[in-house]
Amino acid sequence: MASESKKVAVIGTGVIGNGWITRFLANGFDVVAFDPAEGAAERTRDTVERAWESVKALGLKEGASKDRLTFVSTLEEAVQDADLIQENVPERVELKQSVLRDIDISSKSDAVIGSSTSGIKPTVLQETLENPEKIVVAHPFNPVYILPLVEIVGGESTSQETVEKAYKIYESAQMKPMIIDKEIEGFIADRLMEALWREALHLVNDGIATTEEVDKAITYGAGLRWAQMGPFMTFHLAGGDQGMRHMLEQFGPALKLPWTKLEAPELTDELKERVINGCESFADDRSVAELECKRNEFLVKLIDLVEDYWP
Amino acid sequence: MASESKKVAVIGTGVIGNGWITRFLANGFDVVAFDPAEGAAERTRDTVERAWESVKALGLKEGASKDRLTFVSTLEEAVQDADLIQENVPERVELKQSVLRDIDISSKSDAVIGSSTSGIKPTVLQETLENPEKIVVAHPFNPVYILPLVEIVGGESTSQETVEKAYKIYESAQMKPMIIDKEIEGFIADRLMEALWREALHLVNDGIATTEEVDKAITYGAGLRWAQMGPFMTFHLAGGDQGMRHMLEQFGPALKLPWTKLEAPELTDELKERVINGCESFADDRSVAELECKRNEFLVKLIDLVEDYWP
Repeated sequence: MASESKKVAVIGTGVIGNGWITRFLANGFDVVAFDPAEGAAERTRDTVERAWESVKALGLKEGASKDRLTFVSTLEEAVQDADLIQENVPERVELKQSVLRDIDISSKSDAVIGSSTSGIKPTVLQETLENPEKIVVAHPFNPVYILPLVEIVGGESTSQETVEKAYKIYESAQMKPMIIDKEIEGFIADRLMEALWREALHLVNDGIATTEEVDKAITYGAGLRWAQMGPFMTFHLAGGDQGMRHMLEQFGPALKLPWTKLEAPELTDELKERVINGCESFADDRSVAELECKRNEFLVKLIDLVEDYWP
Repeated sequence: MASESKKVAVIGTGVIGNGWITRFLANGFDVVAFDPAEGAAERTRDTVERAWESVKALGLKEGASKDRLTFVSTLEEAVQDADLIQENVPERVELKQSVLRDIDISSKSDAVIGSSTSGIKPTVLQETLENPEKIVVAHPFNPVYILPLVEIVGGESTSQETVEKAYKIYESAQMKPMIIDKEIEGFIADRLMEALWREALHLVNDGIATTEEVDKAITYGAGLRWAQMGPFMTFHLAGGDQGMRHMLEQFGPALKLPWTKLEAPELTDELKERVINGCESFADDRSVAELECKRNEFLVKLIDLVEDYWP
């Protein structure tokens, strides 16, 4: 897909909206922005300016230019020619529904509407639309112009075509889109993050740790691993030669212990097999030792890098 | 503290025990190891051999040598001259208590005993010891020879002197020791990790995501940030110029939503202030914009690094 032929509209220019604008500009898109707040255009230009060094360092696409941003004074004008409209208004259902209705009515029939909502289900967002098939949730991560993950979630009325078009556009903006088939509040990444966040709040609330200690407990330990490996592969490697199978035998019983305030699911044989097979199939024919080797190589370089940036 | 004058004993040589051995050798300690399992000595030497490239790349201390490892055939012999004894036997209370009793009786009166337990409270571990003041929990993270975090937790009978000595020894092994004053099961880091882990198991159990999708949701998003910043500072930066204060106003209400299976604590004014003050005091007089700048610089370099290592 030639990204230079694509036109993107960004509605709502807070931290996330401006992050999208920067990412799309850096990837050679024309961007039209709208936000009714006083001084919004200026703030956006300042933010893009500040972030430009980062996206330049990541690598600009051909034709990428800060000058390809236009700020307009009505939503209708912003969305009328757009192939993708990214919605980033505050996280209130009625407000989002109303803005999405306006976007739907004023945009092309083959446009894709992506909502940046971090938790509202797409089926709820599309309830009141005339063309509900046009909308997906496309949930990014801050800073949007650097982090590659975007969760794409269709609602009951979203067309398969919309999901596929969305995937292609975000991929052409150098992202790692992940399509989520089952709708749940918070999708996947935020459910995981929120679990950590809620437990962190409990620790601070109970006077066990300060915010600083919680942060250090992450950055000097598990956080380093998570830049390269999620929780499943991390534990696969902690299990020695037998990987996840051994890990679940050894630490499975700890799920019954009062670690964290979160109730664990019952570790049934079915769940065990699903987890073990998941890890083994991801590992493919790479042994734990091989994976360890690669992890170590990465971690050594990461520690070298992160030393200047630690708290 | 001249680490070359320190002698360390490592009891139990699984993944964690061997990790400790490698770290101590790389930092110029003499290490004596004991594990009753058949072939343990050979497995340890193989593991140290494989890991040596990583610790070399991180930087060996003067005098560091793989040859300063001795494997002995009794626990008593291993611990008798040691300044620090690191215990890494399986995670069963009675077993740990019994091994720790043997370690206590056979070791010097001024030795420090560090237990690698990932969840048992030190007060429980020291219950049956003759000299309970000698023991702390010293909980590391895999791979121990690379990740710098070690949680130091004293029990009710642990002396302040032991905690201080432990801190110095682990620090001299290039670690980032964190002293935890209040004992809880799982301490701090594992409570956080476990919350994420349990939520991940729920997602897989409920058929929402595969293990691979969970892992990708971490590595392409939040995991990149966590290598440098914990959850509190991450959200401080997501709040725009006003940092955590704005963040809690905007996303505090989401704590009531059914994101994650974990119940959130009530976001009282007191908790709010504790969180906001924690972030502001950590940020010192650095504005969110300054912190953002540093974060971006780091993330751009990290993405450059991690591209070869992503799933």
